[in-house]
Amino acid sequence: MTLGILGGGQLGRMTAFAALRMGLDVRFLVPEPADSVACFAGVTVGDWNDPDVLRRFAEGCDAVTVESEWAPADRLADAAPGVPVWPSPETLRLVRDKAAQRRRLAEAHLPQPPFRVCESEGAFREAAGALGLPVVVKRRRGSYDGYGNATVRQGTELAVAWARLADTDGVLVEAFVPFEAELSVIVARSRDGETVVYPVFYTEQRDHRCHAVVVPSGMPPGVEAEAVRVAVETVEAVGGVGLVAVELFALPDGQVLVNEIAPRPHNTGHLTIEACHTSQFENHARAVLGLPLGRTELRTLAACMVNVLGTTSGPVRLNALPDALTAPGVAVHLYGKRESRPRRKMGHVTALGADPAEVRARAEEAARRLVL
Amino acid sequence: MTLGILGGGQLGRMTAFAALRMGLDVRFLVPEPADSVACFAGVTVGDWNDPDVLRRFAEGCDAVTVESEWAPADRLADAAPGVPVWPSPETLRLVRDKAAQRRRLAEAHLPQPPFRVCESEGAFREAAGALGLPVVVKRRRGSYDGYGNATVRQGTELAVAWARLADTDGVLVEAFVPFEAELSVIVARSRDGETVVYPVFYTEQRDHRCHAVVVPSGMPPGVEAEAVRVAVETVEAVGGVGLVAVELFALPDGQVLVNEIAPRPHNTGHLTIEACHTSQFENHARAVLGLPLGRTELRTLAACMVNVLGTTSGPVRLNALPDALTAPGVAVHLYGKRESRPRRKMGHVTALGADPAEVRARAEEAARRLVL
Repeated sequence: MTLGILGGGQLGRMTAFAALRMGLDVRFLVPEPADSVACFAGVTVGDWNDPDVLRRFAEGCDAVTVESEWAPADRLADAAPGVPVWPSPETLRLVRDKAAQRRRLAEAHLPQPPFRVCESEGAFREAAGALGLPVVVKRRRGSYDGYGNATVRQGTELAVAWARLADTDGVLVEAFVPFEAELSVIVARSRDGETVVYPVFYTEQRDHRCHAVVVPSGMPPGVEAEAVRVAVETVEAVGGVGLVAVELFALPDGQVLVNEIAPRPHNTGHLTIEACHTSQFENHARAVLGLPLGRTELRTLAACMVNVLGTTSGPVRLNALPDALTAPGVAVHLYGKRESRPRRKMGHVTALGADPAEVRARAEEAARRLVL
Repeated sequence: MTLGILGGGQLGRMTAFAALRMGLDVRFLVPEPADSVACFAGVTVGDWNDPDVLRRFAEGCDAVTVESEWAPADRLADAAPGVPVWPSPETLRLVRDKAAQRRRLAEAHLPQPPFRVCESEGAFREAAGALGLPVVVKRRRGSYDGYGNATVRQGTELAVAWARLADTDGVLVEAFVPFEAELSVIVARSRDGETVVYPVFYTEQRDHRCHAVVVPSGMPPGVEAEAVRVAVETVEAVGGVGLVAVELFALPDGQVLVNEIAPRPHNTGHLTIEACHTSQFENHARAVLGLPLGRTELRTLAACMVNVLGTTSGPVRLNALPDALTAPGVAVHLYGKRESRPRRKMGHVTALGADPAEVRARAEEAARRLVL
């Protein structure tokens, strides 16, 4: 049984580890050599927009998945119509366009920040006025990890934001949400629409990038239940198959609002490798291949993941690894990237234990030591 | 940092998964194509007795290890004297010859079954008489999983056993031990002689082959403490570096005796992947590369591993996988072997939980479903 993956970053790498462990075969198609999957056989480097390349790659795959919502799943589906592609091109089209995504969630009556889709600078200024500053302005396509986003706090910043972020079809503008916490709910959904849901994760961003994830989330049970309800309905609303991560704002009054959707394994789910009976990567592989989904419950009392970002530019040396490995009860994951750059995702660490604050301290300490 | 592995079976495969996760590079040298490592780049197929092949392979490795005590570590050490090889050729020489192994443990005053090394059939008959039937007769070299062993219960069987098992330097004869339980204690030992020890595992063999491993062992604390003491001293007596598995007999009176030693990751340690903070494979990689050893404590209350052996001869189909994946809270590991044979080690399953009997039942059920 063979899983094809379009893309060669850390998400594909960790999906492959999970699939291989179950005895599945994995092959990759990447547009250029990719360090994180260089350890595997079965990597094809080629023009992944070329139908012939896609057809040859898909041949013999039982299913193909993508590592990022920007991989050419739609072209693969056209080139190799007999091979299942999950998430579906339709889901990817919805998720890629943040405006279309918001509209779909609105149709499904899912809670989200007030938003406007603005196709002209005039409409944009009017929306900012109606929503009230500050507003969050998002490029409709291609924004991630803070790239392609801006928070506008004063009217004088509107022109710059428009000039920087507007596409031919405008921008998405959202009310700024004074959240109490950010949460992530990860759902695996089978081809038949069956879902399993991971425990609610508390997440913390630094500079628009995932810094730490902690479970249990520390939120009241009612908020967690609402987060799960909203996440599952969100995944159904976008027709997700495989893993879908739903990032949510929790408000002081107990409401939760959908922030972002990623139809694939997600940085906020890395701690599932150690902390849950079935990792997000394994459940993603299972779902896209039509295999039964696995249990998502914690197999520990508390866990924390902290990202390891690059600090300097240049070739990676593992001088800091021995020191990080002395952190007790911490699993170190490095992604095999040969070049570091400031803020590049180089790896992560996960600590397990009994107390959320204590595991967080241990994970932070190990990540701090991993200067790459 | 690059780890070289001589051999391409499931132990190398799982060691590679652990090393890659930490961001290390892995390369394999195998005498013929090997299914279990076919998923990796960096596999060299070549004559591993050829000094040139060994030298080229070792070049650029920070350390080389072996997947089995029969791999040509000594030749590699000769061909590439600058590259650390662990376990050392000296340890491998000791462990390969079961008679030399027994003598070394005797010098170190370690408890083991009464034994004789017999170089002639006359001496063999005399030893059987002195030890008292039944006796266990072992080929000095090359015996494993019941191959190369015989239990002689009657005097009439002695001639057959001698004819079948004697090498030019004779056989090893041991008193048959009426054990209460078989235990495994896995030790990781660093180049500096630091050791970390895994919890004591209860093991069960079927037809001389590991069937199930359970932790906690259920043995009294005094027996566990003695098992740990004996295992650590055994590893020191053979100069082990990296992982060493020590299989022990526990007697009704609380004594423990050393049964077998394997200077590498071991079938009885597979449950450490899920059950312990650091798996046996990760600690093996760490130890041979001179990295700090990781914590060996359980991160669950109870765990059980059950082996998945082949049942028929022929190409592997994964038809049984979906059914096995529905077993709750069970991690399925298959080794990527393309051909099944009766009793071939095809994979294993590990269940985690709170109660040893309950996790065992779950693991047995999942393994039963995995008919390959």
